[in-house]
Amino acid sequence: MPKFIHKVPVRVAWGDCDPAQIVFYPRYFAMFDNSTDQIFRAALGMPKKEWTKKFGFIGFPMVDTRAKFHVPTGYGDDVVIETQVTEFRTSSFDVVHRLMKGDKLAVEGWETRVLVGPDPDKPGGIKSKAIPPEVLAAFDRA
Amino acid sequence: MPKFIHKVPVRVAWGDCDPAQIVFYPRYFAMFDNSTDQIFRAALGMPKKEWTKKFGFIGFPMVDTRAKFHVPTGYGDDVVIETQVTEFRTSSFDVVHRLMKGDKLAVEGWETRVLVGPDPDKPGGIKSKAIPPEVLAAFDRA
Amino acid sequence: MPKFIHKVPVRVAWGDCDPAQIVFYPRYFAMFDNSTDQIFRAALGMPKKEWTKKFGFIGFPMVDTRAKFHVPTGYGDDVVIETQVTEFRTSSFDVVHRLMKGDKLAVEGWETRVLVGPDPDKPGGIKSKAIPPEVLAAFDRA
Amino acid sequence: MPKFIHKVPVRVAWGDCDPAQIVFYPRYFAMFDNSTDQIFRAALGMPKKEWTKKFGFIGFPMVDTRAKFHVPTGYGDDVVIETQVTEFRTSSFDVVHRLMKGDKLAVEGWETRVLVGPDPDKPGGIKSKAIPPEVLAAFDRA
Repeated sequence: MPKFIHKVPVRVAWGDCDPAQIVFYPRYFAMFDNSTDQIFRAALGMPKKEWTKKFGFIGFPMVDTRAKFHVPTGYGDDVVIETQVTEFRTSSFDVVHRLMKGDKLAVEGWETRVLVGPDPDKPGGIKSKAIPPEVLAAFDRA
Repeated sequence: MPKFIHKVPVRVAWGDCDPAQIVFYPRYFAMFDNSTDQIFRAALGMPKKEWTKKFGFIGFPMVDTRAKFHVPTGYGDDVVIETQVTEFRTSSFDVVHRLMKGDKLAVEGWETRVLVGPDPDKPGGIKSKAIPPEVLAAFDRA
Repeated sequence: MPKFIHKVPVRVAWGDCDPAQIVFYPRYFAMFDNSTDQIFRAALGMPKKEWTKKFGFIGFPMVDTRAKFHVPTGYGDDVVIETQVTEFRTSSFDVVHRLMKGDKLAVEGWETRVLVGPDPDKPGGIKSKAIPPEVLAAFDRA
Repeated sequence: MPKFIHKVPVRVAWGDCDPAQIVFYPRYFAMFDNSTDQIFRAALGMPKKEWTKKFGFIGFPMVDTRAKFHVPTGYGDDVVIETQVTEFRTSSFDVVHRLMKGDKLAVEGWETRVLVGPDPDKPGGIKSKAIPPEVLAAFDRA
């Protein structure tokens, strides 16, 4: 499993929460989306706009995502999202997010995404594109 | 499996979409959250504020949710979310959402939620609470 | 003042609301953004993707917007947003939104937007573009 | 004018942006809402949950807000929101936000809010409540 782990601190905002005084769960997915963005930025040392251009990608659309909610978090809570890519395949990869509230695992998230580039056979289309060794290597460090 | 199916039409708004010109996927979870709300409203014939009061519930927090993304949808698309409760257990239940773009299954969503009421042993706390027969019956019709 | 008024019904969703049990006010701006989209669609008889193409526009970015909050609205409320373009200038225009909760004016919104097309002098750039008489005429009917 | 200015850095997320590749403007209001929260936290040295309890407030609902959009910001941009309370009245106050993209003023925001506490004459109701000298003093320092 790629060893690189990235942590993003998040302070839960008023607008993240719902009338039950807890985070409206779709907001966790937005936080996780950002955390996946940030782990690539941290591992590759450049923002997504740059690494996608460098490696010829367009993006990494979501294929499948899931979350389990163990402990509620609410307005003003300072939490940390620990993110790790757990597997790279030819062009798809899996991500796990652990949202920690202190030492408690509050929310777990999983994602499967696929890296895509321009479809050579279809103008304007997208097609899965192999993940280059340089990207794999960037995640294979502590 | 409870037979009741509820459909909610959604016109994808500009603000639902991201720079890739497709729905920002956390928005699907917000749409699904609303669809679960609406199927209970339709099945029970009253808004959530009323049926929770009637049956002594506080709400139905999410325990576990997942979505798979098959076909992208974008700004201005008219889609339909078909929602069904697939299983009721003592106090928890499963929901499936099928977001249809014309006759194509664009997004599938799954939820496990638990119906909760006030915790009799902890002021201000919540506790899972059995789903009454009247609720089960309301979903057991086509 | 252009006479055309368009009404969009909105059922306030759980996820629109905050821990104070009322709509998180940025959500009103998202609703108003959609209402401006819908009044153009209704007046011109086609979705934005089509009328922008037909008239050579790219969009109508926001320049200035304001809202006043008179009466709170909350989860499950059925409200109606009444939208009217109050003035068309060469390429900019003003919109007013009145969000009605029953017969009460709950929220007022104002917008100034500008219609833009491609900048002929700057590839990829945008430039304000005059509103054609056909658009003006479409709003000048009850 | 109270001298205290608070700055909140924001990295624009993918999910903040719309198909025009720029921030969906209602998101700016959510950012500004958070900035007002943070300036009070910074000035008073404690989170809102604590200072509202300490001074007997329930919150500071929005009465009137406006924003002008000068320069677009987009995905990955690092911006800074500079926030200042420009006037305290008996129980209401005005806030200005300047969202800076480098040295350019990208977005300006204005707010009028009112500090409210429990209505002594109406159980569950809220009523405007005078801002105590301790709060005024906390904002009257550079």
